[in-house]
Amino acid sequence: MAAASEIEEGTVLQPKYDADGIVTAVATDAVTGDLLMVAHMNAEALAKTVASGEAHYYSRSRRKLWRKGEESGHTQRVVEMRVDCDQDAVWLKVEQTGPGACHTGRKSCFYRVVPLGQSGAAKLAFREADKAFDPGGVYKK
Amino acid sequence: MAAASEIEEGTVLQPKYDADGIVTAVATDAVTGDLLMVAHMNAEALAKTVASGEAHYYSRSRRKLWRKGEESGHTQRVVEMRVDCDQDAVWLKVEQTGPGACHTGRKSCFYRVVPLGQSGAAKLAFREADKAFDPGGVYKK
Repeated sequence: MAAASEIEEGTVLQPKYDADGIVTAVATDAVTGDLLMVAHMNAEALAKTVASGEAHYYSRSRRKLWRKGEESGHTQRVVEMRVDCDQDAVWLKVEQTGPGACHTGRKSCFYRVVPLGQSGAAKLAFREADKAFDPGGVYKK
Repeated sequence: MAAASEIEEGTVLQPKYDADGIVTAVATDAVTGDLLMVAHMNAEALAKTVASGEAHYYSRSRRKLWRKGEESGHTQRVVEMRVDCDQDAVWLKVEQTGPGACHTGRKSCFYRVVPLGQSGAAKLAFREADKAFDPGGVYKK
């Protein structure tokens, strides 16, 4: 195992995969800076993203690699990719093709606000209630 | 287990914790929009963040809850909190106190770029090589 200094201050990409072989991937809109989605990558998804400049992720629930947009057409071209200090997360600044990144039909997956200063049950508030596209028409069921 | 429609389109916060009781937490700078860090929360960290408006996280390696800045003084006041479609990730827009969020002494944990269009070993490029503060003087070893 590499020393912390080498991982944090070195120039070698050596992702710290978890027990399931996964790192976290955060995608933001390269133009607006908005957070679009949080997903995951295994080594193959990471390698394909680096090689192609197109975002690839790994679905933990479906246990498969997917190229973002392969079904919806809403691909993500990676403008810049970064890795964090301990190399267990990557940040993709992307050009999002089409109306949105979220499978619910919205631009961003983060369309609901959690109210602060409360204890107990919190009632979420929608920020982007209207859908940018019809997911039923874009994603095969 | 709640139906997908209720989780994605409802107004009840019902985080989807993983097998270790964890959700992903992404913190961005509320002013600049920059991605500061990716961390994790258990139910207690999430509840304390919502109740106090101060970012609390859960360290998987140290297996303990921590209030961001409790050691360094570099606290994060949460300006807005959002939850994603399947409720396994939250987004904190924060006011970062002090010079930086990263324990290495930098503003952001994402201070290295992964070059694209290459296969094989990638040489990381520093974007924020200089440290905003001296981690040795801020964090107890």
